[in-house]
Amino acid sequence: MAKDKKMVESITSMSEDFAQWYTDVVKKAELCDYASVKGCMVIKPAGYAIWEKIQKELDRRFKETGVENVYMPIFIPESLLQKEKDHVEGFAPEVAWVTHGGLEPLQERMCVRPTSETLFCDFYAKDIHSYRDLPRVYNQWCSVVRWEKTTRPFLRSREFLWQEGHTAHATAEEAEARTQQMLNLYADFCEEVLAIPVVRGQKTDKEKFAGAEATYTIEALMHDGKALQSGTSHNFGDGFAKAFEIQYAAKDNSLQYVHQTSWGMSTRIIGALIMVHGDDNGLVLPPKIAPVQIMIVPVQQQKEGVLEKAQELKERLMKAGFSVKVDDSDKSPGWKFADCEMRGIPLRVEIGPKDMEKNQAVLVRRDNHEKTFISLDELEEKTGEMLDTIQKALYDKAKAHVEAHTYEAAEWDEFVDTINNKPGFVKAMWCGCKECEEKIKEVTGATSRCMPFKQEQLSDKCVCCGKPAKKMVYWGRAY
Amino acid sequence: MAKDKKMVESITSMSEDFAQWYTDVVKKAELCDYASVKGCMVIKPAGYAIWEKIQKELDRRFKETGVENVYMPIFIPESLLQKEKDHVEGFAPEVAWVTHGGLEPLQERMCVRPTSETLFCDFYAKDIHSYRDLPRVYNQWCSVVRWEKTTRPFLRSREFLWQEGHTAHATAEEAEARTQQMLNLYADFCEEVLAIPVVRGQKTDKEKFAGAEATYTIEALMHDGKALQSGTSHNFGDGFAKAFEIQYAAKDNSLQYVHQTSWGMSTRIIGALIMVHGDDNGLVLPPKIAPVQIMIVPVQQQKEGVLEKAQELKERLMKAGFSVKVDDSDKSPGWKFADCEMRGIPLRVEIGPKDMEKNQAVLVRRDNHEKTFISLDELEEKTGEMLDTIQKALYDKAKAHVEAHTYEAAEWDEFVDTINNKPGFVKAMWCGCKECEEKIKEVTGATSRCMPFKQEQLSDKCVCCGKPAKKMVYWGRAY
Repeated sequence: MAKDKKMVESITSMSEDFAQWYTDVVKKAELCDYASVKGCMVIKPAGYAIWEKIQKELDRRFKETGVENVYMPIFIPESLLQKEKDHVEGFAPEVAWVTHGGLEPLQERMCVRPTSETLFCDFYAKDIHSYRDLPRVYNQWCSVVRWEKTTRPFLRSREFLWQEGHTAHATAEEAEARTQQMLNLYADFCEEVLAIPVVRGQKTDKEKFAGAEATYTIEALMHDGKALQSGTSHNFGDGFAKAFEIQYAAKDNSLQYVHQTSWGMSTRIIGALIMVHGDDNGLVLPPKIAPVQIMIVPVQQQKEGVLEKAQELKERLMKAGFSVKVDDSDKSPGWKFADCEMRGIPLRVEIGPKDMEKNQAVLVRRDNHEKTFISLDELEEKTGEMLDTIQKALYDKAKAHVEAHTYEAAEWDEFVDTINNKPGFVKAMWCGCKECEEKIKEVTGATSRCMPFKQEQLSDKCVCCGKPAKKMVYWGRAY
Repeated sequence: MAKDKKMVESITSMSEDFAQWYTDVVKKAELCDYASVKGCMVIKPAGYAIWEKIQKELDRRFKETGVENVYMPIFIPESLLQKEKDHVEGFAPEVAWVTHGGLEPLQERMCVRPTSETLFCDFYAKDIHSYRDLPRVYNQWCSVVRWEKTTRPFLRSREFLWQEGHTAHATAEEAEARTQQMLNLYADFCEEVLAIPVVRGQKTDKEKFAGAEATYTIEALMHDGKALQSGTSHNFGDGFAKAFEIQYAAKDNSLQYVHQTSWGMSTRIIGALIMVHGDDNGLVLPPKIAPVQIMIVPVQQQKEGVLEKAQELKERLMKAGFSVKVDDSDKSPGWKFADCEMRGIPLRVEIGPKDMEKNQAVLVRRDNHEKTFISLDELEEKTGEMLDTIQKALYDKAKAHVEAHTYEAAEWDEFVDTINNKPGFVKAMWCGCKECEEKIKEVTGATSRCMPFKQEQLSDKCVCCGKPAKKMVYWGRAY
């Protein structure tokens, strides 16, 4: 097998060069590729199938909370983008501008949406009249464009896929509840489905979304100790409503402004999946998000009955609700094993003539390479149990990694030393000043990831300026 | 009820003004709305839910034939669009051009994709090396932009949603088989799911897709006798492969060009659904595509137990696999009945205190307003049968409409008279010359819709020029 294994092109090891390892995995697992269009991705079948599973599961969870899907135009006229002051400042420098339609110049240029708050607001201003029209809980699945200078597959690209929810409510309380509800939905999805533990918290004013009153975030820790913002939920209060004049007649006939939220998760999360679970053999996918959960590899497939047996097992497993493939290509078993591993398929089932004699198969876990011999009489039951075990093991391993790489620092020197020498989250107290955040970023490269909902009182003074502390913050370098 | 009915805003009747009727239905059934962005739509929840059902069913059928989903960039650099001569001529006049990224002008302008042949070709040229890499059967769900001058909701808008399949094959035969397979898939979907009968055939050279060797189409007939092209499938031969140098090493090691196809269906088909099945009370949706199949309307809902009973019926019907809602709003039953009809919900279930006494409910069909009393013991069975009956009745009615509005003409005067006075398809023989097609369009406004696969020999000479006929063609005015 060692010899065969080389037939699958090797990837850089994580410890040698994490960035190169990431690029290698993306490429060799055939998740995506660069396009001729600078900074844009081609998402290949293996990558898109993961996104489809993410969409399906998130969409189901959204709809359970009353979300309705809609579709808004791809273009935003410049005058519309400019209606909310903070918002335009945040986005105007990074949008793509359309100036010509067909052979004619446009009277007003339009940008390709970087996000659709302004379009939803424009629509809500016409569509909402009375308290009976509220709440509006709309979402759309689409692509957005942000003109980034440096790009990396999934993590930062000029176009990416996402969903963006935009809601309008009668009261501030209801908007706040929806903002938190969606953040928790994202967090539960990451933990239960993607097996990625996250820290739930609020962004500081410096890091919040352009135009928001409050931004909540979930932050995940990658294998290299860098953080990745994995989903955000914003409460806009009535700021956009005032800019766009979105008013409704209340029960007492008074005119009131609506309160709004927005929330999004993008293909970036596929980058998190890769960097949280992957290893030196390639991608590792949790069973609940793997497009192919089980790969059956026939051994000595030229022998009579082996391929037929492999097909029979496939049909049994599919009937039991798993997604299964048989690798009946003309490659060697060793090549197939390595290929399965590169693609992150959670469980491999090996079946050969000797196994058939003994009425058994071999199960091999992707996460820890553990082999188990099972009787074919228990095929469905044992594979199901094994997939559950893998899902849990991946979460536990990732959770242990976060815990082992979350530090505390009370003093400035200790803080700087930790950031510089121990990749991970650093918990430290903060006075609430933008100046301290800026100094920390300048000196260490770390940013405030969030003020976690679960606050702790590590000390009573700011780790940076020593003034009285207001909040405990998770700090870290981030993607 | 007559009085209550007025509470639901009335719509223009079809016979009075079909175009206005269409606009009214789109608006009152809340399918879509105009956006501030000229020529673009806001697809509202009721419209988007139909699109989601179309997507789900088409995607399932695609995947059964081996289709894999991917995602290509939204932008096409100008030089890429220009690689295939016919293609650029067809599309360049109607694209939106991006000239600036952020604050900087681009070195090369890019258009927002009007269709993605060039992007797939560019990708395939890098990605396909050997016969082992073939076939490639990729599809993407996305939005495209075409800078139309006049627009109508769903039928013609500057941005629309669609899927576009793009395949590459080793042989011409395989490409041709895939082109026909996908056309038949679209036709079966329209007939089985949307209850829309279609004519399957080939486009003339004048009407085929820019860059294609052959374009196949399905043509549906709207209630007003105008045709709507409802899905197309193109065989490109090796034309694009030569322009983009997409070659593979064959088994004998010779370098060969691939043969390609593309095929698409768009949100336009929602326009067809409206115009084939709708009536003067609003939208009529076939049960297999209706996001809500059954609306339960409680009568005298203030009476004890009525709302509870309605909820109980809803749960029973949902458990049986139907999509069901209860209208428990504070509107009158008459208002609710009219509202259900406007939205095209296939079946209404009425339940009141008297029905409860008799252990019965009233089923009312949307398509023909027929009422049936059923015992609650048979609720699931009878509603299921009724939905099947409605699905079939809608198809039969539409089929009868096509048959009643399909004419034949052997002579020029008869042809012109039929086109001018009898809205529908006119079958007539054609010599194969572009000049005759142009003359017919100029004189009658009708275009060649397709050369149907089922050819008939109506006469031996062209209806226009009298020269020997080559093909029987369906002619008609079209959307």
